[in-house]
Amino acid sequence: MNQQKMNELKQWMAKEKIDLTYISDPHHIGYFSGYESDPHERVLALFISLESDPFLFTPALEVEDAQNSSWSYPVYGYMDGENPWEKIAQLIKQHGHPNKIATEKEFLSIARFEALQSHFPEADLSANATPAVERLQLIKTDAEIGLLLEAGNWADVALEIGFQAVTEGAAEQEIIAEIEYQLKRKGVRSMSFNTLVLTGKNAASPHGTPGAATVASGDLVLFDLGVIWKGYCSDVTRTIAYQEPTAFQKEIYALVLEAQLAATAAVKPGVTAGELDQIARGVIEKAGYGEYFNHRLGHGIGTTVHEFPSLITGNDLVIEKGMCFSMEPGIYIPGKVGVRIEDCVHVTEDGCESFTKTPKELQIFG
Amino acid sequence: MNQQKMNELKQWMAKEKIDLTYISDPHHIGYFSGYESDPHERVLALFISLESDPFLFTPALEVEDAQNSSWSYPVYGYMDGENPWEKIAQLIKQHGHPNKIATEKEFLSIARFEALQSHFPEADLSANATPAVERLQLIKTDAEIGLLLEAGNWADVALEIGFQAVTEGAAEQEIIAEIEYQLKRKGVRSMSFNTLVLTGKNAASPHGTPGAATVASGDLVLFDLGVIWKGYCSDVTRTIAYQEPTAFQKEIYALVLEAQLAATAAVKPGVTAGELDQIARGVIEKAGYGEYFNHRLGHGIGTTVHEFPSLITGNDLVIEKGMCFSMEPGIYIPGKVGVRIEDCVHVTEDGCESFTKTPKELQIFG
Repeated sequence: MNQQKMNELKQWMAKEKIDLTYISDPHHIGYFSGYESDPHERVLALFISLESDPFLFTPALEVEDAQNSSWSYPVYGYMDGENPWEKIAQLIKQHGHPNKIATEKEFLSIARFEALQSHFPEADLSANATPAVERLQLIKTDAEIGLLLEAGNWADVALEIGFQAVTEGAAEQEIIAEIEYQLKRKGVRSMSFNTLVLTGKNAASPHGTPGAATVASGDLVLFDLGVIWKGYCSDVTRTIAYQEPTAFQKEIYALVLEAQLAATAAVKPGVTAGELDQIARGVIEKAGYGEYFNHRLGHGIGTTVHEFPSLITGNDLVIEKGMCFSMEPGIYIPGKVGVRIEDCVHVTEDGCESFTKTPKELQIFG
Repeated sequence: MNQQKMNELKQWMAKEKIDLTYISDPHHIGYFSGYESDPHERVLALFISLESDPFLFTPALEVEDAQNSSWSYPVYGYMDGENPWEKIAQLIKQHGHPNKIATEKEFLSIARFEALQSHFPEADLSANATPAVERLQLIKTDAEIGLLLEAGNWADVALEIGFQAVTEGAAEQEIIAEIEYQLKRKGVRSMSFNTLVLTGKNAASPHGTPGAATVASGDLVLFDLGVIWKGYCSDVTRTIAYQEPTAFQKEIYALVLEAQLAATAAVKPGVTAGELDQIARGVIEKAGYGEYFNHRLGHGIGTTVHEFPSLITGNDLVIEKGMCFSMEPGIYIPGKVGVRIEDCVHVTEDGCESFTKTPKELQIFG
């Protein structure tokens, strides 16, 4: 449970004259309450009231787990046959009659919004809590940075396992199986997204699907992976060569590395998110490959693998100490070559530190 | 790409005088278009028009993959820095000016709904496509049932691997690692949800979190798992005994099995979803354990692991041939014992057939 962050949310509520905030994103519920789960289509909700205690509302079969988490306020459950909205409305009305209710507009479905609205037809539901919550999550505490470093360390371990599994004829899917098996045996419960291992031409699709393709001499092999560790995510990408790369592969790799290092060197409080993207993009554009860097430079990371800030040209957000994000330029030439290099960093007083430490120079295996 | 189901959706649109349907749930996009991906916070959308061709709208970095899928209509992309809604509005307006637009209200976020609304201020956006799409998915074709059987077969393989890994002192997490490793090596790309292996008292929480707890003599060990195979999901639960169970464990097991078999025997066209739940629940209530069966009997399964129908008391939905759902009664007595037995079935002309074939009698290992 994160009382401090709930208090900060309540400061925002007081300023905006919001009586009640309905947190619906399971990751955000986990962030505030310490209880995280995937409720599938069932209703899992956290209600934070300005004047009375917050409460968790969960499916009946999760009540015990929620009570056993670090959450110390009430937990209410509902059975599958019950209408959750009637119970929720009753619980809210026990503590007053909110005039202004904020919801997470970037997450909450229209159907649930309308269900809430039907029980509070007089209330003003126009307030959007999403930017406020994202703002709270933007600056990480030292404790959070410690966990992100631990998660990053596991990502380095995963890369090392993966590199060792790269052999002639190894299928992408076999290498992934090896990485996840060894990690799970070491106690890592989940990956932060589907592990990517893409070899040869497959690596030229930045979000390709790994499968039966096998490693062959002269392939570049792209690894993009991360773990969830004590609720915090890692995310790293390395591209390695299996046996001697061509001059063209080396040229593309060197360019991506130059872009990654240039942008990383520029990270410090005061620079904007858009400027960082421009620095990396400038390196690649100058060399004539701009059209093949078809995604933003990076995204925030924390309890989720994609959060604020977005490192994209045009974003004027000023970088501050404690922000955490990925730096991941890439060049993808369809049918030819794909290279991406990514570390996630946290911003320090005068620069940044990476959560992952695997070397970035082109490594050649086999 | 599923042209037949798109045509069926258009029949619904014609009846409701809807000009355009915005499909936003990535699973539903995959169902209609044949292209499935997890866009994270980016916009992935399928627009189905009554009068002109449908189109996919994806992040720029997914356009190539979408074009290489079975989708044969246009794919439009947007770069990270662009406003996707301006592009979407332009694309829609190229083909006319929709008066009535349906959205998936159970899925679409308020923010995206409002973004669409801002570009079509005159349009009627009250129609909800969610029930129509769910209705389309409710009755599976023979081809779909074939894939669900294949997915079920992989779940049986997974259980067999898991049972063999149950040894004195084996940690829940190690058993899971073994199952997923062997499956991935065999070519199974993803599990349909986080694999559950819960031993001893942990099994008494129906959605517990597996971890370092180890198998000890006298434990019941609960497995709940499934795979995604060619886009279709499996979901199975078995509870086994490690060494000789107590009379009490046997009693609870026998009761859950009786409930599962009784409800399964009652499945046929014409019965209601609620009646099936009542049959299983009745067995458990009669024995005095009703309060410990704290979830519905089952849920639909198909391209997602939780879909229509919901098997819960009070649901008057009449079961029809081709519907596919789980039958999973359980008894969870906190701190004492947890047993669940689950198969997913498809409804035949006069009964049902299970997608998983692992025996349901209590198996004793070690």
